[in-house]
Amino acid sequence: MMKIFALALLILSIALAAETAPDALKYTPAGEMVLPAEYREWVFLSSGLGMTYGPAAAKARQGGPLFDNVFVNPVSYRAFLKTGKWPNGTAFLLDIRSSESHGSINKDGHFQTTLSGLEAEVKDEHGEWKFYDFPTANGSPKANGKLLPATASCYSCHSKNTAVENTFVQFYPMLLEVAQRMGTVKKDYVP
Amino acid sequence: MMKIFALALLILSIALAAETAPDALKYTPAGEMVLPAEYREWVFLSSGLGMTYGPAAAKARQGGPLFDNVFVNPVSYRAFLKTGKWPNGTAFLLDIRSSESHGSINKDGHFQTTLSGLEAEVKDEHGEWKFYDFPTANGSPKANGKLLPATASCYSCHSKNTAVENTFVQFYPMLLEVAQRMGTVKKDYVP
Repeated sequence: MMKIFALALLILSIALAAETAPDALKYTPAGEMVLPAEYREWVFLSSGLGMTYGPAAAKARQGGPLFDNVFVNPVSYRAFLKTGKWPNGTAFLLDIRSSESHGSINKDGHFQTTLSGLEAEVKDEHGEWKFYDFPTANGSPKANGKLLPATASCYSCHSKNTAVENTFVQFYPMLLEVAQRMGTVKKDYVP
Repeated sequence: MMKIFALALLILSIALAAETAPDALKYTPAGEMVLPAEYREWVFLSSGLGMTYGPAAAKARQGGPLFDNVFVNPVSYRAFLKTGKWPNGTAFLLDIRSSESHGSINKDGHFQTTLSGLEAEVKDEHGEWKFYDFPTANGSPKANGKLLPATASCYSCHSKNTAVENTFVQFYPMLLEVAQRMGTVKKDYVP
């Protein structure tokens, strides 16, 4: 009986831990980021069309404009709702999609099609912001995320132009309101 | 000791039930749909720009094009991944957003701003598809969802033009592939 009781308690603690633990990120020994398998089930922050910079922008010039979908890990999202800040271990996944304009009943406007790029911004365990690029081919991610060097343009652009910490909260309507209420918008942020 | 053991088992069953229960929808006695408070944390299926039909399209003609974000309840999403079908109790929330083109660092393209419309499509407990409209004002939902009559254009359009059941899976790239694999794409669907 004591053993069954102990087992029940153990299962219970595991269930509770799974509910409250951070969405732990994984890295290879070489420091590459492992793609979180279920990032498409993370919390969606917003999407834009034709806003893409960097390598993806070059692709866009060849085809139609690209959509960018931004997802954040659920534990960090809930922490932000309470504090207006991103905890260490936060990850943003930028899921970049090709667009089409004529298909099915759609005669105008644009809808999303295949994956054309995948990037991550991470606040690591020391509170440092880092960027990773996941190579894609034929609409699928093909390898782990490569750490981008500190000289990559994303570092300076995010550092200079973001509304909250190193993140473009000005483009996430529901979170900007939280940050304003919590007083975590950067003092030098210009809308 | 037996009491503590029973209590542990009870808590454990509640925890497990919460993990596997459908994301129950709520209705008022008058049959209006209560807005699921955390629908923005549901699974994001896709977004489009300028694709909006019906009442929202009239608004769009006055301002810029509208974004539409589609969310589905997580339990139904996971069921679809396994079966290519939507279980009873499935709800899609269509979160319609105004767009802006010039703001912050964005000089081109479009990003999302305030909520400008909110609609739901539900597969009810009898497997019937129903549509609800949530009135919005100043970027917020203002009332419960009103059931749209069967004569509303959404019913005939969804019935005639959707790829899987009554849903526009052709616009959700990750799910179309599932439906093709599971053989649940409508026989008369024309891409």
